[in-house]
Amino acid sequence: MTMTITETEREALYKVIYSRRDVRGQFLPNPVPEEVISRLLDAAHHAPSVGFMQPWDFIVVKEPEVRQKVKDGFELAHAEAAAMFSGAKQDAYRTFKLEGIMESPLGICVTCDRSRSGEVVIGRTANPEMDLYSSVCAVQNLWLAARAENLGVGWVSIIHHDHIRQALGIPDHIVPVAYLCVGYVSFFHATPELEQAGWLPRMELETLVHHETW
Amino acid sequence: MTMTITETEREALYKVIYSRRDVRGQFLPNPVPEEVISRLLDAAHHAPSVGFMQPWDFIVVKEPEVRQKVKDGFELAHAEAAAMFSGAKQDAYRTFKLEGIMESPLGICVTCDRSRSGEVVIGRTANPEMDLYSSVCAVQNLWLAARAENLGVGWVSIIHHDHIRQALGIPDHIVPVAYLCVGYVSFFHATPELEQAGWLPRMELETLVHHETW
Repeated sequence: MTMTITETEREALYKVIYSRRDVRGQFLPNPVPEEVISRLLDAAHHAPSVGFMQPWDFIVVKEPEVRQKVKDGFELAHAEAAAMFSGAKQDAYRTFKLEGIMESPLGICVTCDRSRSGEVVIGRTANPEMDLYSSVCAVQNLWLAARAENLGVGWVSIIHHDHIRQALGIPDHIVPVAYLCVGYVSFFHATPELEQAGWLPRMELETLVHHETW
Repeated sequence: MTMTITETEREALYKVIYSRRDVRGQFLPNPVPEEVISRLLDAAHHAPSVGFMQPWDFIVVKEPEVRQKVKDGFELAHAEAAAMFSGAKQDAYRTFKLEGIMESPLGICVTCDRSRSGEVVIGRTANPEMDLYSSVCAVQNLWLAARAENLGVGWVSIIHHDHIRQALGIPDHIVPVAYLCVGYVSFFHATPELEQAGWLPRMELETLVHHETW
């Protein structure tokens, strides 16, 4: 493996980035082979981490009974969430399919152990959130690796920490960062579903770029 | 662009993931072309975001006077940090080069506008941190895109929010998520520098994987 990335390889990376989707509704039940799961986790494990602390753990969930507990936690938080939207937004919210916990054959929970490697961590001294951010980088690596394996991924964030902890036996000092639904899919949407549904438009990049100062 | 990723494209993604480094010391002064900067920002803009809120902004910094203000903020937080390590760890910490703010020709600050798209955001109801996590996903997309462009990136987290806000004129309601040094490099290290320095070892993946429950 040389260290130079070719133009062809660069285009492949962009293809993966642009065709990645948050998948909720197109999961197939086909199991994900063990060697593929290993590649996903190893890609996640090679994310950047503050002070090289590698604060992540990965809980691989296949049993329907365990996934059902996660689903129960989602249902609760989802009902709470619906009540927070008003009028037409609430109606629209209720029509969205927001998770595929039971339809996808695989769940992967990514966590953050903030105590890993001791109290003082290089790069976390001024910004204590950096360890959580490292685990998020692992999520994004895993997500892109999954897309490159033609696997869909959906991030279930509508669940309280306590419920995910209870469902998966996660110790109190460990922070749940993401619960991901993973599986093969019938197809990938060409654009994000919330964009298609007219919930929000894709913003123009130029409006988000500032030069020298804000 | 078909939606299936080929084996060759998959291998390219893995090559980018495994050869990505946090670069501090190998920056070359060569300017980064505008079309390359645009590709990096567009890749970041295609990260996943909670409720499709796209909470990120990007501040592109080239002027040395502006970068010097960021550097001043780093120096302050770096001195504070050094004092937090004890004994041999403090000596080791002081030997590490932890940023390339002035050596790299380009800085990119990624932020999070938590008020974007209103108060109630799909997917942020149970986990308010999800918008910050979306901006972190944008950082990781940008980092991998940069690696695919054979550009080094270093995340400077040793700086207080107030200093980065002041240096770049960032409004109070906007959260700075990352300040990234970006530039071409003389070489990429084969393994992370903190691993090479014996600060911490790469953990064995198997010790981080749990099945069904923690």
